Amino acid sequence: MTFQLKILGSNSATPAYGRHHTSQFLTIGNHNFLVDCGESSQIQMQKFRCRSTKINHVFISHLHGDHYLGLMGFIFTLHLLGRTRDLHIFAQRGLDEIITLQLKHSDTRLKYRIIFHTLNPESPELIFEDHLVTVHSFPLTHRIPCCGFRFSEKPKPRRINKDLLPENIGVIEIQALKAGEDVLNPDGTIKYSFTQLTLPPRKSRSYAYCSDTAYDESIIPHISGADLLYHEATFLNGREEWAHQTFHSTTSQAATIAKKANVGQLLIGHYSARYRELTEFLNEATDIFPRTLLATEGETIELPD
Amino acid sequence: MTFQLKILGSNSATPAYGRHHTSQFLTIGNHNFLVDCGESSQIQMQKFRCRSTKINHVFISHLHGDHYLGLMGFIFTLHLLGRTRDLHIFAQRGLDEIITLQLKHSDTRLKYRIIFHTLNPESPELIFEDHLVTVHSFPLTHRIPCCGFRFSEKPKPRRINKDLLPENIGVIEIQALKAGEDVLNPDGTIKYSFTQLTLPPRKSRSYAYCSDTAYDESIIPHISGADLLYHEATFLNGREEWAHQTFHSTTSQAATIAKKANVGQLLIGHYSARYRELTEFLNEATDIFPRTLLATEGETIELPD
Repeated sequence: MTFQLKILGSNSATPAYGRHHTSQFLTIGNHNFLVDCGESSQIQMQKFRCRSTKINHVFISHLHGDHYLGLMGFIFTLHLLGRTRDLHIFAQRGLDEIITLQLKHSDTRLKYRIIFHTLNPESPELIFEDHLVTVHSFPLTHRIPCCGFRFSEKPKPRRINKDLLPENIGVIEIQALKAGEDVLNPDGTIKYSFTQLTLPPRKSRSYAYCSDTAYDESIIPHISGADLLYHEATFLNGREEWAHQTFHSTTSQAATIAKKANVGQLLIGHYSARYRELTEFLNEATDIFPRTLLATEGETIELPD
Repeated sequence: MTFQLKILGSNSATPAYGRHHTSQFLTIGNHNFLVDCGESSQIQMQKFRCRSTKINHVFISHLHGDHYLGLMGFIFTLHLLGRTRDLHIFAQRGLDEIITLQLKHSDTRLKYRIIFHTLNPESPELIFEDHLVTVHSFPLTHRIPCCGFRFSEKPKPRRINKDLLPENIGVIEIQALKAGEDVLNPDGTIKYSFTQLTLPPRKSRSYAYCSDTAYDESIIPHISGADLLYHEATFLNGREEWAHQTFHSTTSQAATIAKKANVGQLLIGHYSARYRELTEFLNEATDIFPRTLLATEGETIELPD
C-alpha cells in the first residue's frame, strides 16, 4: 500500500525565496489527505501533479493564515470542477464560519457538501477511522488552539506463507490463520498452526504532523515511534527565547523531540523568512537526530511497506 | 511622472497553466495601487519585484474569490513586516466582515489601521482624490455587485518654455502662466503672454479597469477615451451564450467596447481555464480593435508621459 508525503509548502508566516506557506499532500492507499492548506496550495498541487480532486479529507491544524488561507480557493475550484462528493474538513472552531461567510458574499451554493468536524484542542481524539487507517488529533502548544495529527495504518493481518499452505484449506480457515488463530480439529488438537503457516504482519506505518508548536515534551506519547515525524523548526539555534515567545521551535528542539519520541525519521520545515539558506537547519538537527530531512517543496517522502 | 501597470494574475476562476487569479499593480507617480488581489498576489509581487510594502490603497472589484482571496495573506504579511501606516481598502460591502472575522480567529491585532471604503455598486462615484490623481468607481454587470475603476491623472499645468522665459520673471508670475493666465502690466496691457511663454500641458493619462462584466454599453461613458482599458475577455467568440449566462464577455465583445469607447489601447485578460493557448484571443480582438494587448503575468504596460 502506498504511504507517501508530498511537500507543497515549507515556509512560515510570510512566503519567501520561492517557498510557500505550509501544506502537505499525504497519500495512504486510496486516501488523499490534504494537511494544512496555506495560500497557493491549489497551485502547488497543480504544479506537482497531485490528484487534488481526489481529496476527501482536509486537516487544518490551526487558524493562522499561513495554514489555511489556500482552502477557500480550493473549495471554489472543486465547485467549479463540478464536484458532488462530500468534502470533510477537520479544523478548529471558527473555520466553518469563515467559509460560510465567504460563500455567502460570493453568492455561491456549492454543488457538494462540506462536512465540518471541529477539533478538540484540549485532548487527543480519534477523528477518522476506516478499515485501513486511523487519524488522531492531539494538542500542540501554540498561541492559538492548534492540533497535531497522527495518520496510522491499522494493524495488518499476518501474511500467508503460500509455499506451505495445504491445497484444500478453506477461506474461513485462512482468515483465522491471518488473524493469528490456530485452526483446530473437532477433538481440539491443532489442524493448522498459524505460527507455521503464516509470516508476521507487515509493519503498520504512521506519520505524525506537528505544525506549529513550542518545545513541549507532552506531545511525545502522541508521536512516539512514528515512522516519520514532521516537527516545525522555524528558527536556527540561538533564537530559543524568540521561539519560546512566538510558540515555535528551533532545529535542536525539533530534533530532541524526535530523539525522545524514538521516531524513524524527522522532517523539519516551517522555516522563518529570515533564512534564505537552509543547510544549517539540517546540520543542527542531524547533530542531535541524524535521520533528519528538510521539507523541500515538490519532494516526496515514501514510507516503505 | 510614472504611469505603469504590472500584470500579476491573468486567469479567471481557477488558476491554470501557470496563470494566476486576477491582480494588477498600478504605479502612478508615487502611488502604488493594488487592483484586485487573487490568491498568490503577494507571491507574484515578490516574484516580479513590486514594492508591495508601498501600497497604501487596494481596490477590490467584487467578492468572487478569484479577485480577493490573496488579500488576507497580504494583510498578515504587512503586519508581520511591521507596517504602521494606514491601509485603505475599497471594496464591496462584506469584505470588512470577512477580514475582521479572520483577524479574530487568528487572534491578530494589526499594528496598522485598515480604513475600509464601501463601494457603491449602483452608481459611479469619486472614491479617491489627491492633488495628482482621481479614482472613480462605476457599476459593472456581473452576477454579484461589482465595480470597475478609472484611475486618472488630474489636468496638468502648461509647461514653461524655458528658451523664451525672461530672466527676471517671478515665481508667482510663472505660476500664473502655467495656469494659463496672462501676466498684466499695471495699465492692463499684457506683460507676459502665456500662449507665447508656455507649451500646452502634457496629456492627463487614465487607466480604466473592468474586471468581470457581461457586455454592457452603459459602461462606455465611464471608460470613454481612456489611454488604456482593461476589459475582461473570459471566452473566445462562439461562446456568447455562455458568457451571457455567466456575466462575462468574449474577445469581440471586449474589443467592441474598446472601439465604441474610443480608448487608446485595450488590454484583455481573465482567460477561462479551458484555454491553454491565448493567440486566438489576440487574433479575435485585433480584428475589431487593432491596438489590443494580452494580459501577461510579469509584463508591464507603460503609458508614456
